[in-house]
Amino acid sequence: MSKKFVYLFSEGNKDMRELLGGKGANLAEMTNAGMPVPKGFTVTTEACTQYYEDGRKINDEIQAEILEKLAVLEEQNGKKFGDPENPLLVSVRSGARASMPGMMDTILNLGINDTVAEGLVKLTGNPRFVYDSYRRFIQMFSDVVMELPKKNFEVIIDLVKENRGVQLDSELLTEDMMLLVERFKAYYKEKMGEDFPQDPKVQLMESVKAVFRSWDNPRAQVYRAMNDIPADWGTAVNVQTMVFGNWGDDSGTGVAFTRNPTTGEKELYGDFLMNAQGEDVVAGIRRTSDISELKKINPAVYDRFVEIATRLENHYRDMQDMEFTIERGQLYMLQTRNGKRTPGAALKIAVDLVKEGLITEQEALLMIEPNSLDAVLHNNFTARALATAKPIANGVPASPGAGCGAVYFTAEDCEAHASEQPVILVRQETSTEDIVGMQVAEGILTARGGRASHAAVVARGMGRCCVAGVASLIVDEERKVAVLGGSTAIHEGDYISLDGSTGNVYLGRLETEEAKIAGDFATIMGWADKYRQLQVRTNADNPHDAGVARDFGAEGVGLVRTEHMFFAEDRIPAVREMIVAPSEKERRIALNKILPMQRGDFEGIFKAMKGLPVTIRLLDPPLHEFLPTEDADIENLSKTMNMSFERLKAIVISLQEVNPMMGMRGCRLPIQWPEIAEMQVQAIFEAAINVYNETGEKVVPEIMVPLVASDHELKYVKAIITNVADGLIAKAGIDLPYEIGTMIEIPWACVRADAIAKEAQFFCFGTNDLTQMTWGFSRDDAGKFLGTYMDKKLIEHDPFQRLDRRGVGRLMKLAVDLGYETRPDMHMGICGEHGGDPVSIEFCHNIGLTYVSCSPFRVPIARLAAAQAAIRNPRK
Amino acid sequence: MSKKFVYLFSEGNKDMRELLGGKGANLAEMTNAGMPVPKGFTVTTEACTQYYEDGRKINDEIQAEILEKLAVLEEQNGKKFGDPENPLLVSVRSGARASMPGMMDTILNLGINDTVAEGLVKLTGNPRFVYDSYRRFIQMFSDVVMELPKKNFEVIIDLVKENRGVQLDSELLTEDMMLLVERFKAYYKEKMGEDFPQDPKVQLMESVKAVFRSWDNPRAQVYRAMNDIPADWGTAVNVQTMVFGNWGDDSGTGVAFTRNPTTGEKELYGDFLMNAQGEDVVAGIRRTSDISELKKINPAVYDRFVEIATRLENHYRDMQDMEFTIERGQLYMLQTRNGKRTPGAALKIAVDLVKEGLITEQEALLMIEPNSLDAVLHNNFTARALATAKPIANGVPASPGAGCGAVYFTAEDCEAHASEQPVILVRQETSTEDIVGMQVAEGILTARGGRASHAAVVARGMGRCCVAGVASLIVDEERKVAVLGGSTAIHEGDYISLDGSTGNVYLGRLETEEAKIAGDFATIMGWADKYRQLQVRTNADNPHDAGVARDFGAEGVGLVRTEHMFFAEDRIPAVREMIVAPSEKERRIALNKILPMQRGDFEGIFKAMKGLPVTIRLLDPPLHEFLPTEDADIENLSKTMNMSFERLKAIVISLQEVNPMMGMRGCRLPIQWPEIAEMQVQAIFEAAINVYNETGEKVVPEIMVPLVASDHELKYVKAIITNVADGLIAKAGIDLPYEIGTMIEIPWACVRADAIAKEAQFFCFGTNDLTQMTWGFSRDDAGKFLGTYMDKKLIEHDPFQRLDRRGVGRLMKLAVDLGYETRPDMHMGICGEHGGDPVSIEFCHNIGLTYVSCSPFRVPIARLAAAQAAIRNPRK
Repeated sequence: MSKKFVYLFSEGNKDMRELLGGKGANLAEMTNAGMPVPKGFTVTTEACTQYYEDGRKINDEIQAEILEKLAVLEEQNGKKFGDPENPLLVSVRSGARASMPGMMDTILNLGINDTVAEGLVKLTGNPRFVYDSYRRFIQMFSDVVMELPKKNFEVIIDLVKENRGVQLDSELLTEDMMLLVERFKAYYKEKMGEDFPQDPKVQLMESVKAVFRSWDNPRAQVYRAMNDIPADWGTAVNVQTMVFGNWGDDSGTGVAFTRNPTTGEKELYGDFLMNAQGEDVVAGIRRTSDISELKKINPAVYDRFVEIATRLENHYRDMQDMEFTIERGQLYMLQTRNGKRTPGAALKIAVDLVKEGLITEQEALLMIEPNSLDAVLHNNFTARALATAKPIANGVPASPGAGCGAVYFTAEDCEAHASEQPVILVRQETSTEDIVGMQVAEGILTARGGRASHAAVVARGMGRCCVAGVASLIVDEERKVAVLGGSTAIHEGDYISLDGSTGNVYLGRLETEEAKIAGDFATIMGWADKYRQLQVRTNADNPHDAGVARDFGAEGVGLVRTEHMFFAEDRIPAVREMIVAPSEKERRIALNKILPMQRGDFEGIFKAMKGLPVTIRLLDPPLHEFLPTEDADIENLSKTMNMSFERLKAIVISLQEVNPMMGMRGCRLPIQWPEIAEMQVQAIFEAAINVYNETGEKVVPEIMVPLVASDHELKYVKAIITNVADGLIAKAGIDLPYEIGTMIEIPWACVRADAIAKEAQFFCFGTNDLTQMTWGFSRDDAGKFLGTYMDKKLIEHDPFQRLDRRGVGRLMKLAVDLGYETRPDMHMGICGEHGGDPVSIEFCHNIGLTYVSCSPFRVPIARLAAAQAAIRNPRK
Repeated sequence: MSKKFVYLFSEGNKDMRELLGGKGANLAEMTNAGMPVPKGFTVTTEACTQYYEDGRKINDEIQAEILEKLAVLEEQNGKKFGDPENPLLVSVRSGARASMPGMMDTILNLGINDTVAEGLVKLTGNPRFVYDSYRRFIQMFSDVVMELPKKNFEVIIDLVKENRGVQLDSELLTEDMMLLVERFKAYYKEKMGEDFPQDPKVQLMESVKAVFRSWDNPRAQVYRAMNDIPADWGTAVNVQTMVFGNWGDDSGTGVAFTRNPTTGEKELYGDFLMNAQGEDVVAGIRRTSDISELKKINPAVYDRFVEIATRLENHYRDMQDMEFTIERGQLYMLQTRNGKRTPGAALKIAVDLVKEGLITEQEALLMIEPNSLDAVLHNNFTARALATAKPIANGVPASPGAGCGAVYFTAEDCEAHASEQPVILVRQETSTEDIVGMQVAEGILTARGGRASHAAVVARGMGRCCVAGVASLIVDEERKVAVLGGSTAIHEGDYISLDGSTGNVYLGRLETEEAKIAGDFATIMGWADKYRQLQVRTNADNPHDAGVARDFGAEGVGLVRTEHMFFAEDRIPAVREMIVAPSEKERRIALNKILPMQRGDFEGIFKAMKGLPVTIRLLDPPLHEFLPTEDADIENLSKTMNMSFERLKAIVISLQEVNPMMGMRGCRLPIQWPEIAEMQVQAIFEAAINVYNETGEKVVPEIMVPLVASDHELKYVKAIITNVADGLIAKAGIDLPYEIGTMIEIPWACVRADAIAKEAQFFCFGTNDLTQMTWGFSRDDAGKFLGTYMDKKLIEHDPFQRLDRRGVGRLMKLAVDLGYETRPDMHMGICGEHGGDPVSIEFCHNIGLTYVSCSPFRVPIARLAAAQAAIRNPRK
């Protein structure tokens, strides 16, 4: 029995989204719920995978199945594909498993050709509509299937409009539309060397192929990489009977959300256009009307739509994003899906849905993408700044947050300058080509488009602030200048500030402030804490960061990187003196200069954490990182240090390493020079004792030894630590508990974690180094080939961004199991970048870690991710 | 119940060597066999360990036990310690579990003091003997216990001899000996600030302590490191009733082997001195007599000795090395142990013992240290060279083989220059301080000493050639010059050649040739092949090495490193052209230039291996290794390449990596540039086809992909290989089987070897890289801390020399088990340096590998080691 590759809408349901894609599954669901959905069928995602397996060909079997279902469609509609007497027209739309707005392409009005057009004129008596539809079809087919750029067709339209002396498409007459069809066909023939295809079945097959092909286009690849969508999912294709929003003034099309996707308020929210096809709304070319206007134009249709929207939200138990078309006063639903929303709206909607009794707390937690909280946590303009600032323009508040940066007019320029300074992308309107530029920008400003425009949808998805549809903005991309608010010229590199929550645009840089956890956010965090099993700590190297993290809910510091302190301007001279010291005695003299500063650092962090545990990692990086490498800098330093250039240079050279990542660093430093660790431990315990004496709060210092491979190493360094610590504690005469543990970041330590655990009270996985060693990838150099690896699909994600669960994770699992075997009550965590990545956090939960530690701003994300992990994978 | 720390000789036996040390166990065994052994007792190795645990103190319990056994000794001898009327004198000797010649120190005549000396004069009527013994005791005690250098005492002796106008110690009179005692005591007091200890019990305890202490002296540490003796074994101490070889002319002392330790011939072999103590024989200060002379001097003692020697050899079923003393015509056995022997002698003795029915083939195989074969396999002078060369001097042929190198006069100088050129250590006589220098030297030449001298014993152990006791050699260490054969001046850096088999010394460099496997060696190799289960292959990059290895018994090539070919002068220009090529097209043009040369390389190796399997590793190192780094070299190359300096420099810089070990190399190269692998695979298969067509012999190429982490990588490269290979095979129209496998040298591959095995027909462990990744040790940089690690006992061996079984081995075991799980019939091996290390080979046998691959000259060693592994650990 061969696989079924094509399903009628009536054969599917919402649980079949893996096979039918999100759009197809929901069209099926709505069809079965008796809603007014034009008939159609879905070519499955498996057909797409098969297409790629067959070397980018739709095989005969699948072609036959498509034509078979097309025949059913003809019968259902009582119309025939290509029959001028009674022609069936269809739309072809992609529909992947996960919604990918703007990525995939749509073709409307398919099935039209010269004779069908003539037939349709007779049938409808509306030649302008017919030739408008025909020219649109040629344009879309040429663009999507043949990759003839759409804008070249726009040029032809502009010429016709110029000749006619009109501004808007809607002002064009029937004869203009007919002329456009002729010119478009001529242009097509000129470019493609053959006539525009008149056979509707050829049109259909080529369009399906084009959708499959577009799954793997560069824009889609970027989107997938950004959103972690596996390449092998594929896309489905939906073929659906056309209904026409451009039939006349009693027709129209629109999109709407059941709740406000920006604020989360429970209100119908959307835009529509009369006498238009869907793309006109999304493209933002024409100014749309608010959905509430529809009530005035056609109250019956409006009421029906409200009723359907409510049913859909209750049915899907989530806010819905719907597309509809009105054909000659009749409402048709073309799509529904869970709506994209701003992170703030997501919080409100989730909390409201619980209050309304539609979902449970756990379901609410699972509805929120942890990474989206990043946006809620960042950047609003301060009240002080807003009090005095005067906006120079206002547009649609399309995605909230405050964005401040230098203006660039192309995505490429944004990319090129984003590493130097914050950038703002300013465009007439955005398109899929701009995605990478939007990704690196602090904010997006467009002249055209509303809340459903490409810029708005994508920016909200990314958590970037966006002000769209600023009518007074004129962008001259060529000359790299824009005019705003009538007279203000903005040149490339000028700073502007965007308020995505009000739509205001300001000149210069406005002061921003970071968000607090309150309201719905606080509610969600409370629920997260209720369900999560992982403790969440923070990585913090100074009291400020530690304080911020504590406010964000960190339950301790999981990683203090003491080397960051060594780089501080006031101590780097002493650090360098220590490094170049010719003997232990001189090294100790230099270390004594650093001691009071280190003690001060720790006192600050201990105070900020108010008795919560603080894990301090001993000095980790190779010492040469603290010395200059260029002759000129060495020369300067030699003068400061009162040492000959030659001698200092010799020391610098002697410290150089072929592979510094695997050289003299981590626990190898105190093994070689115990006095360095002695100073650090002294600073830690003197600080803890001082803070106790001052505040009465007992810190629990956890000393963490980095880069431990073997138990012997740890045992050796442990002896140095206990020796100093116990002496200081005894001298202070207080009972100060502390722990000694180790980073697990070397494969040796993983495979013999049973032995390591004999010496360690806790493990903390350093998955950055562990990834380097496990893969043999130097993070500094892997950029040269990781791109190729991802292109060639040899690796799904950058393993430095998302924990590689297959290999690195296997070693971690081994280490966890062996560690608990020796010491069942030990605590185990992860610090470093993976500790703030939700997918990695879920893995950490699953293998039995007890905590994750991440940067302060990721603490709320980690709290939510940990809760989701616990809800999805309850521990026994 | 407390542990027993002291055993009488009568309480022990030969199986107690772990507790009593080798010497103590054998003294006990001989005692119980009724042989004439002076009474004594052994302080155990556990007492030594306890001494270190107690912070270098002999605790009261052990002291009491020593005194208790001393009382038994007094009773057995009817003498009393420190009693001038009837004094007991004892020797104190170390005795570790494994024999450590020259490492540990001996004290004779202990128990003597001023009053005992007077009493002994009365008792013996031999005042010269008494004061000779006393001065020797002071000298030895001061040296060993107090670290007053022996040579300072020699200076005092020389002064007395000068005053007396004599040359030899034996010419000194009683009054000279008495004078020496006085002067020695005065010198001792001056240096130590107190009188020489007169209490025999103090003398004893201090001596025992000194022996324990010497277990951990730097020389002992070096010896242990070289011979893989764990630091925690400790040494025992033997306290034995003195018998005096220096009593008079009817007394003497000597050492002898039951077979010739140089040739293995079954003949009594040794030296003795009349009227001397043991150290005189070993130190090589006096010219000794051959053991056969004893027959003339005292036939009864000689016959008794021969009888005992025969009994001992039959008892221990191995060649014995014995020490004896004759006191006033009475024979005493002081020691027996399995004798050190040259590697050649070891082979003969093992084979002879089997022929004589004393041992089995398996026991014979276990008797031979695999590493010792290295010496048998290397360096003899060619007959042609010997025919014309004229020796300038002749000495004792103390350790066989040919050595050729630049002369240095101190161990330090040898060490300093050994990396530049082969070196020869030339010394008046060697001592334990010279061990490291001997280790790096190609040969050792001494002026003094015989076959039992320090130089001879140590050189034989190391397999270094040694010519000792060259009477015509005068060494002026200060001025760094020697006079040889009367008039030839040899300066530091001059080349000489030593024939350790004849004792001849030549000026300049004589041509050497490598040994063949024949005679006893061949017999042993035959037995090894009979018992071993591991296949032995070789690493060979050219036909010559492949041929040598085949003659040594290699059963295939386990590793062809193709990069070595890339460095060849005739192709490096094309290689560089390939690297700097701006496009794939130009890269292919350059690769096409390399293709015929690579094909030629492979043809040569295939022909040399005559149908045996050949494993070829695809290009592994980072490409920047093929480019110059210095500006001047880049400048030169840019001219040759007709490319601007700036452009070439930019390419060089772009290829630089922070951690090249973990950068763009291995399988990452063909993933980035498939055309490189395509060229190599084309060369391999064209070569295989050509060789088949020419010789009719079908090679089985095994293509090995390096640095594979994940199954996806291997799958990708495999597709490149099969694509090219299958095309060429089809075109040639022959049936050519081949295999594709992978290096396992990345931890990822180990932990997911089940997935890797789906793509690989064989695994080959690259334990060099695997050690680097598993430990996070860069081999290039680890030198900076591995020394410290070994000093601080954090690591037992350099993991790059001996496979680290705890960590790296654990990963290997995991990989082997997972691999077989997926593909039970796959073959698995190891290549790289560990593949030639016997201990590592045993591990490979134990975890279930099917082959090892090593350098050609280690093939016989590996065959033997594999046999020993199989005998010791029979597989189920």
